[in-house]
Amino acid sequence: MHSIEQLQYLVNKAIADTKYTEQPAELYEPISYLMQLGGKRMRPVLVLIATEMFDGNVFKALDAAIGIELFHNFTLMHDDIMDKAPLRRGKPTVHAKWNESAAILSGDVMFVEAYKLMIKVDDSILREVLAIFSDTASGVCQGQQADMNFEKRNDVSLPEYLEMIRQKTAVLLAGSMQIGALIGGAVPDQANLLYEFGENLGLAFQLQDDILDVYGNPEKFGKQVGGDILSNKKTFMLIKAKELAIGNTRTELDKWLNRSDDPFAKIEAITSVYNLLEVRKLAEVEMEEYVNKALRALDLISVARSKKDLLRGFAEQLLIREN
Amino acid sequence: MHSIEQLQYLVNKAIADTKYTEQPAELYEPISYLMQLGGKRMRPVLVLIATEMFDGNVFKALDAAIGIELFHNFTLMHDDIMDKAPLRRGKPTVHAKWNESAAILSGDVMFVEAYKLMIKVDDSILREVLAIFSDTASGVCQGQQADMNFEKRNDVSLPEYLEMIRQKTAVLLAGSMQIGALIGGAVPDQANLLYEFGENLGLAFQLQDDILDVYGNPEKFGKQVGGDILSNKKTFMLIKAKELAIGNTRTELDKWLNRSDDPFAKIEAITSVYNLLEVRKLAEVEMEEYVNKALRALDLISVARSKKDLLRGFAEQLLIREN
Repeated sequence: MHSIEQLQYLVNKAIADTKYTEQPAELYEPISYLMQLGGKRMRPVLVLIATEMFDGNVFKALDAAIGIELFHNFTLMHDDIMDKAPLRRGKPTVHAKWNESAAILSGDVMFVEAYKLMIKVDDSILREVLAIFSDTASGVCQGQQADMNFEKRNDVSLPEYLEMIRQKTAVLLAGSMQIGALIGGAVPDQANLLYEFGENLGLAFQLQDDILDVYGNPEKFGKQVGGDILSNKKTFMLIKAKELAIGNTRTELDKWLNRSDDPFAKIEAITSVYNLLEVRKLAEVEMEEYVNKALRALDLISVARSKKDLLRGFAEQLLIREN
Repeated sequence: MHSIEQLQYLVNKAIADTKYTEQPAELYEPISYLMQLGGKRMRPVLVLIATEMFDGNVFKALDAAIGIELFHNFTLMHDDIMDKAPLRRGKPTVHAKWNESAAILSGDVMFVEAYKLMIKVDDSILREVLAIFSDTASGVCQGQQADMNFEKRNDVSLPEYLEMIRQKTAVLLAGSMQIGALIGGAVPDQANLLYEFGENLGLAFQLQDDILDVYGNPEKFGKQVGGDILSNKKTFMLIKAKELAIGNTRTELDKWLNRSDDPFAKIEAITSVYNLLEVRKLAEVEMEEYVNKALRALDLISVARSKKDLLRGFAEQLLIREN
């Protein structure tokens, strides 16, 4: 079994070694640019971990792993246009560096390249892998559309929010692992268990992200702490706070939701409301439920316990409280 | 064998019968809207004709035919954003009716739906069909990028132009027929001949379009006659005229290329230059060469001559001079 660092190295090397020689160059340059901005490569690494768990050869899964990473970066390229985001990982986004048309069209061809890599799997699993990949892709688009719809609504419920993050974030982790398992030789039932693991892990990760946006260590958290608060983003924290706040607390919350003139005061005031209502605790409980669901699915997989160590570690780190 | 009208009916019925029930509705409404704006359904009809030519059952090819039409409309949805086009078939484009984000994201999920339909082909041809479809999709993106690059250039050569229209227009007709043939049971060599037929036919169609933009009957030509002239579009006509014009003719051509204050006079003046240089004749000769190449590929296909009638008709109508 390889370590996560070794798998990240394999993924990064494969990405660095990919040269797009087709023309026009303008179409392919943004792909190489975005793919080489770095990142933890979580999704392709999960593909490879799933393959190895079933004694598969990681090199056989490398194309599919890169295909998943290409797909993920294609969604980022298009999401950044929709969000009018100027930066990604501290560098100009594709539409900012080139232009919007380049970002639309390079994204489109990136999606084709992702499919071209997925098609390389063995005949015996080709149809199944493509079905999973396509369903995953639909799910991610649906999640992004729901996320955009929520920006215009003030009555988003917790179940609606959880369904949105399931689609936007969790199904891709789930699909990555299911595909990796099939490439590794897993029978469908076993691959389904890894899907379930990935789906619940993805939900837990997003809830952790919601918590860290408010309570994270600014030096460790990759994004600006309080970013969700400043944009009034309907996260678990805010939805739960609106559900619970009454009286003066409700008045205070609504007042700050309508203000954007003093960012620091806004972050402080809304964090105080969260503290008072103890929404952090509620988010942690919800997150832990998803982690436990993930771990139960992992337990049911019929491979030696030691082969599940990496994934168990991924999940259990979410149970460690950072205070 | 079905007639073209019968095949168009089958395609239109399949499109009308497709209801997207997945959520959010905002993601799928633009797909149904664009798909039902109508059109000749040339690409899916070509899939079905190719299938029947090899004694295949058209109903077996219907999913792939609709997949091709979905893909084609996905490219239109994204192209319209890039071109800032307000209208498509006389109706608001998707980004105009909804917004740009909706057009980007609905286009993306439309592409997924296209793949989902292509995946339905038999195991024996699955990998081959997906490879053709993916290569076709890359080609169309490359052609669109080249087309956008050409807008900023004044030195586009005829070979470059022909390569651009090959990718942007011809490969999709070619790929449609190749896929249709494989579904119909054709061996790869025979399907390749239909690819060749479609590619050359596509080039001929585009050259006819270039000619009709200048000399078409306004009542029959679907678009505004002179549209390419008004936008200084580097068509076969203009590139050839720039190649040939010298002296006063060159001065006249350049003058009108730089003017946009009097549309009617511009169309008249540039058409006069084309008349003087006889570029219509040159375009027709080029077009006929492609038609003949297409017909030669068709001749080589090992099926009864009568089974090629529809396609021969498609090609031969391009040889009839409209004056």
